[in-house]
Amino acid sequence: MTSLNDLPLRDDLRGREPYGAPQLDVPYALNTNENPYPPSERLVKALGEAVMDVAGTLNRYPDRNAVALREDLAAFLNTDTPGAGLTAERVWAANGSNEVLQQTLLAFGGPGRSALGFEPSYSMHPIITGVSGTRWVNASRDEDFGLEPARAVAAVEEHRPDIVFLTSPNNPTGTALPLPAIEAVLAAAPGMVVVDEAYAEFRRAETPSALTLLDGHPRLIVTRTMSKAFAMAGTRLGYLAADPAVVDALLLVRLPYHLSAVTQAVARTALAYGEELLGGVDALRGERDNLVAWLRGEGLRVADSDANFVLFGTFPDRRAVWQGLLDRGVLIREVGPPEWLRVSVGTPREMAAFRAALNDVLKESL
Amino acid sequence: MTSLNDLPLRDDLRGREPYGAPQLDVPYALNTNENPYPPSERLVKALGEAVMDVAGTLNRYPDRNAVALREDLAAFLNTDTPGAGLTAERVWAANGSNEVLQQTLLAFGGPGRSALGFEPSYSMHPIITGVSGTRWVNASRDEDFGLEPARAVAAVEEHRPDIVFLTSPNNPTGTALPLPAIEAVLAAAPGMVVVDEAYAEFRRAETPSALTLLDGHPRLIVTRTMSKAFAMAGTRLGYLAADPAVVDALLLVRLPYHLSAVTQAVARTALAYGEELLGGVDALRGERDNLVAWLRGEGLRVADSDANFVLFGTFPDRRAVWQGLLDRGVLIREVGPPEWLRVSVGTPREMAAFRAALNDVLKESL
Repeated sequence: MTSLNDLPLRDDLRGREPYGAPQLDVPYALNTNENPYPPSERLVKALGEAVMDVAGTLNRYPDRNAVALREDLAAFLNTDTPGAGLTAERVWAANGSNEVLQQTLLAFGGPGRSALGFEPSYSMHPIITGVSGTRWVNASRDEDFGLEPARAVAAVEEHRPDIVFLTSPNNPTGTALPLPAIEAVLAAAPGMVVVDEAYAEFRRAETPSALTLLDGHPRLIVTRTMSKAFAMAGTRLGYLAADPAVVDALLLVRLPYHLSAVTQAVARTALAYGEELLGGVDALRGERDNLVAWLRGEGLRVADSDANFVLFGTFPDRRAVWQGLLDRGVLIREVGPPEWLRVSVGTPREMAAFRAALNDVLKESL
Repeated sequence: MTSLNDLPLRDDLRGREPYGAPQLDVPYALNTNENPYPPSERLVKALGEAVMDVAGTLNRYPDRNAVALREDLAAFLNTDTPGAGLTAERVWAANGSNEVLQQTLLAFGGPGRSALGFEPSYSMHPIITGVSGTRWVNASRDEDFGLEPARAVAAVEEHRPDIVFLTSPNNPTGTALPLPAIEAVLAAAPGMVVVDEAYAEFRRAETPSALTLLDGHPRLIVTRTMSKAFAMAGTRLGYLAADPAVVDALLLVRLPYHLSAVTQAVARTALAYGEELLGGVDALRGERDNLVAWLRGEGLRVADSDANFVLFGTFPDRRAVWQGLLDRGVLIREVGPPEWLRVSVGTPREMAAFRAALNDVLKESL
C-alpha cells in the first residue's frame, strides 16, 4: 500500500496533520462556534425555492463575479456599520472566509514574502499562509489576549511583514481590538492589513468594526462570514470589504467561477432573511455574558468575549477536562493557549448541559 | 483613486489580466463548452427538495470530507469505466476541477518546483500553476495536436517536472490521448501525473479513460467535472480519482469545509439523475461529428474531437471571424493556437445558427 511518505509531497508539508476539530456525533456540539438556531421552516422553503429558480439553468456557468450577491453583502454591511458606505465593487465573496483569506495570501503573499499574526489567534491563518508558500511570523498578544498598539507596532516594524493579520473579535480568545490598535498597525505596516471579523456581529455595543476605517486605507481588508452570526455555516460564504483595487488584485488569483450559482442564490436568500437569521444574536450575547459570569463565579479565569464563544481555564491537564466533558456528551474545543479551553455559546439548554457537565468534571478532579 | 499598481501585489502577478471568456448575453453562447440541455422540471424539483432537506441544518458546518458524495462519485466512475474499482477513499471533490487542480499544485508543487504541460491545452493549467508559486514549463503537442509517446517522454526527461499535466480529451483541441502515451509519461515522470479528463464522457467509443491505469500507479491523478457532460456547470463540482495516499496529501492543503452542504446535496441529487443528465451526451456526440464533417466540407481544417467542442481554422485574422460571428449573435471562443477558433457543440438549433453565421462571415471576407 502506498503511504503519504511514498509520494512527492512538498517538503514543508511532511509530517503535518490535516486541520480540523473532530466531527463527532454528540448531544451537545459546542466546538466550532456554530450558531445553534437553525433556519425557520419559512426560510427552509425559501431556500428550496431559490434553488429551484436557478436550477433550470445549472447547465450554464454562474456569474463569475457574483455581482448581485456582492451588492446584497454591501447593503448588509452598510446596515451592520452605518456610514460604511460600501458598494459591490468594494466587496468580494468566496467559499468561506478561508477562501477569501487564501486568495489574499495568493495575491499579496507567496514565495519570499511573509505574513505576521498575533497569537493565540485563528489557527487557519498560519496554515493558509504556509500552504500559499508565504513565511509565517508569529508575534504574540498581551497577557490578557489584548494587543497594545505600541507592542503591535514594534512587531510590525521588526518583521516588516507583507501581510498583517488582526483578528477582532479574536478567535479563540473572544477579545476585540479597539480601533487605535488597528490604526496604529495600519500606519506602521508596509503591506496589507487583514482584519478578520468573522465574529463581528456578536460584538458588544461599544465595540466598533474596522469597516469604519476603510476610507483612506486602501491596504486594509476586513473579512466577514455568514457561518457564525448569520447561522449559515453549511452554506460556506465568506466575504471581505476593501478598496476596489484589492478586489482587482483578487480577480487575478481567484479560480474562475469559484462561487456556484446555488451558493449565490442561497446566500442572497439568507441575506434577504437577515433579520430572522441574526435574530438569535442578542440571545447568544446574553448567554455569553451569563456564561462568562458563571465561569468566573466558579473561580475560573475567563477572557472577555465579544464573540459567540468563551475561552476559559486554566487547567494543568486540559485534555482531561475536554475528555470529561465529551464523556458527558459535551464536545468543546481544545485549542488556543495551553491550559485553556474554548466553548461555543449555544442555546440555554446547551449551556445548562455544559455547566452541569463541567461542574461534574471539576468535582471529579478535585 | 487607488489602482492595482499602488498595492503590494506579488511581483509576478503585475500586468496580468484576470482569466475569463467574456460573459456576454447573446442568443447563442457556444464559448464555454457548456452542455446546452438544462435539467428537466422533475430534476429542478428534486434539487429544490434536496436543498430543503439540508437547509434545516445549514447553521451547522457540512461534512468536511464529503464522504457520501465521494461514494456516489466513485459509483458513477465505476459505471463510466467498468473495472475502475473505485471507492470513496480514492475519490476527492472540490468546487470545480479548478479547485481540485489547485489543491494538487499546493500539495505537490510550490516554490522551487515545476509543472509541465503540453500546449495548446487548458489555459487554467499554467495559471493555477503560477498562482501556486510553481514554475510552469511549456512543452508542445505534435503538429496534429496529438502527443507522440517518445516526444512526451523526452520533454519529461529533459525538464524533470514535479507535476505533468496531460489533458484528454484535450481542451481546446478535442484530441484524446491513447493510453500508451499516458503510460509512457507515467513511466518517465519523477513526480505526479495529472490527467485532466474534464470532457471524458464525450469520448468516442474506442477511446479509453486513464481511470483504467490507476491500479499500480499511485502518482496518477485523474480529474473529472460535473460541469460538462453532467450539465451542472452552475453547481461547481470537480473531482478526482487517485490512490488514497493522494487524497491524504490533499487533506493537508484543502480549506476545511471547502464543499458546502448545499453543493454536496445538489451534486448527489444530480448524480442520482445521472441517466437524465448524461442523456444529452449521445446527441452532442452526433452533433459534434456532424459539425466536424460540415466544417471539413467547407474546406476548413478541423482537429479530431472526443469532446463537446471543435477547434477549427485556420484564419489569418481569427479575431475578425470571431467578431463577425458575435455580430450575428453567436459567441464562440478565441483561444488556442493562433489562427484557430473553438466552438462548443450545442443543440441542433444552435449548430444551425452557427453554420449560418459562419457561412455568412466567410462569404463576407472573400
